[in-house]
Amino acid sequence: MFTRNRVCGAPVIVSRARVPASGIRAVVINSGNSNACTGEPGIENARRMTAAVAAQLDCAPDAVLVCSTGVIGVPLPMDRILPGIPPAVSRLSAADLALSEAAAAILTTDSFAKLVSCDLSLSGVPVRVTGVAKGAAMIAPNMATMLAVVMTDAVLTPEECDHLLRHAVDRTFNCISVDGHTSTSDTVLLLASGASGGTPGGPDDFRAVQDAVLHVCRRLATDIIRDAEGASHFITVDVSGLATRTAAFRMAKAIADSPLVKTAIAGGDPNWGRIVSAAGYCGVEFDPACVSLRINGTAVYRAGAPVPFSAAELSQSLKADREVHLELSLSGGPSAGPESVRFWTSDLTCEYVRLNSEYTT
Amino acid sequence: MFTRNRVCGAPVIVSRARVPASGIRAVVINSGNSNACTGEPGIENARRMTAAVAAQLDCAPDAVLVCSTGVIGVPLPMDRILPGIPPAVSRLSAADLALSEAAAAILTTDSFAKLVSCDLSLSGVPVRVTGVAKGAAMIAPNMATMLAVVMTDAVLTPEECDHLLRHAVDRTFNCISVDGHTSTSDTVLLLASGASGGTPGGPDDFRAVQDAVLHVCRRLATDIIRDAEGASHFITVDVSGLATRTAAFRMAKAIADSPLVKTAIAGGDPNWGRIVSAAGYCGVEFDPACVSLRINGTAVYRAGAPVPFSAAELSQSLKADREVHLELSLSGGPSAGPESVRFWTSDLTCEYVRLNSEYTT
Repeated sequence: MFTRNRVCGAPVIVSRARVPASGIRAVVINSGNSNACTGEPGIENARRMTAAVAAQLDCAPDAVLVCSTGVIGVPLPMDRILPGIPPAVSRLSAADLALSEAAAAILTTDSFAKLVSCDLSLSGVPVRVTGVAKGAAMIAPNMATMLAVVMTDAVLTPEECDHLLRHAVDRTFNCISVDGHTSTSDTVLLLASGASGGTPGGPDDFRAVQDAVLHVCRRLATDIIRDAEGASHFITVDVSGLATRTAAFRMAKAIADSPLVKTAIAGGDPNWGRIVSAAGYCGVEFDPACVSLRINGTAVYRAGAPVPFSAAELSQSLKADREVHLELSLSGGPSAGPESVRFWTSDLTCEYVRLNSEYTT
Repeated sequence: MFTRNRVCGAPVIVSRARVPASGIRAVVINSGNSNACTGEPGIENARRMTAAVAAQLDCAPDAVLVCSTGVIGVPLPMDRILPGIPPAVSRLSAADLALSEAAAAILTTDSFAKLVSCDLSLSGVPVRVTGVAKGAAMIAPNMATMLAVVMTDAVLTPEECDHLLRHAVDRTFNCISVDGHTSTSDTVLLLASGASGGTPGGPDDFRAVQDAVLHVCRRLATDIIRDAEGASHFITVDVSGLATRTAAFRMAKAIADSPLVKTAIAGGDPNWGRIVSAAGYCGVEFDPACVSLRINGTAVYRAGAPVPFSAAELSQSLKADREVHLELSLSGGPSAGPESVRFWTSDLTCEYVRLNSEYTT
């Protein structure tokens, strides 16, 4: 799955054309330069990267995918990238160390590597789902970009992988935001090698794989928010009681993206009016008299009216805890129903502004 | 015209039900408390404010409109507001001083009063259009809110006023943004007293009034951006070459609202990739190869490819000037056409974060 930005990096254009597929052998990733907004030469460079890897692995260039992350609008330094590929391939191994090294190599401004595994068994055969990701913000300085590669040794068809990945991304990577700025390079890949021989034998097995992929993606996605640039709070936004997931998603995202909600939480300020009013402009029709809100478990607004609470105590809890929980629910009126969405975001701090004020110059 | 937020202040609910109308006599405004999210008692309080003014003016309560701006979710201190109304009415006068006092009285965190006049003549009769506004940001601390009252002594019907106001607001107040957070209280009113006796005698006269109202609204709207909280740059975003105004508007707003665009400009960083990529996720279909961008007159991106420029010189110009001009144009492909939109915004600074981090507690 790839960014929906109309302006997308050359690697996105090249990789997107090659999936879903049954013969993918490798993914080559560089960090420091996103190869985006680089015109036709950029596309040619992305293809050359895959061809160089394919030559080492003795496979077709089409069997190699490519991702790039970093500064935008600057030609890739091919004189440094191409000579680096043979030694990188020669250092590949089955050892966990190789995966850790890859997880570290793709980082840009991240403060820690993101690597998650989940073991399960399919009809008695042990199977593993492992993922690596990078992203110190949904978008950090100049397209820090979110890249993730999830791998499994289960036996899965391209169609099954497509289904599993859409299910997981919809509930994880598509439910995180730092600044609402969609990158040109976002890419999440799911690769199934079949090396374990473990095949889903029925709906229960398939659900077990689905849960494992979801678990890995959720952990990687929330790790990105935990590592968000300059952030001092990890915020979970739960919106419930909507008729559709789409409506709940829009409402959660409007709250998560509001600079006023984010600055209030940065300051430990239980300024609930900002949260309720962000829901109000998300484009979903609803009756304000049916809205209730809790902050860190404390009811602050119920059925459209303020609830008395200790602002000092709630402020203290916001200042003491890095984790913040916002729960907005709808109890009736238009758009009410059984659907809910969980969304994750970070707060907005001076440090974020500082980190993002000077980058290319 | 009023906020489109589903969660709106009691004064918005009360005033919206009373316009358009031909007998409006007064507008009563308080600052410091927005009377929003205050339930049924809030609506009753807004009505009581208008009734108190009507009693002084000997008119129907329906002939009085009400606006409030300030903190959300706190009951209005009616024991202070009601006794203040008779002395406020008694101080009204035809002198300019009264209008200046009103413009100052409605401010919250604004650093200067916003008052603009424009004179014209209708069939030889001198006519004036005058407006006052408040707003130190589209949204500043906890709904600083944008309020504006535009007045004229021209003879206009309610329908003409409605048309004139929609035309002007669409090109001015709806084209400004500081943080993309739509307030619960935004209100722009146009009142025509007819006191001058000047009546538009034909299309040319009507266009002259239209231009005057547009001029006053544009000046008030851009004054709000010039006064944006914590901002160090006043940014004009011109998007041209789109098939529809709606598409051009979406693209301009996506650029103006991006925290990454705003922080780059705060840091004097000509990071054009952020601007182009913000256009890319605005939801408008277009061909990236037809996009060109200028920053302060310098071409940085042309027909989908980077243009060599001196980053040091452009950065210097961004650091030296408070005014920034971004010009994005589309030369072909889907969505291309003759429409353009001008949008105004401010940058995102640590000072904005500081001002908005602690407000209610």
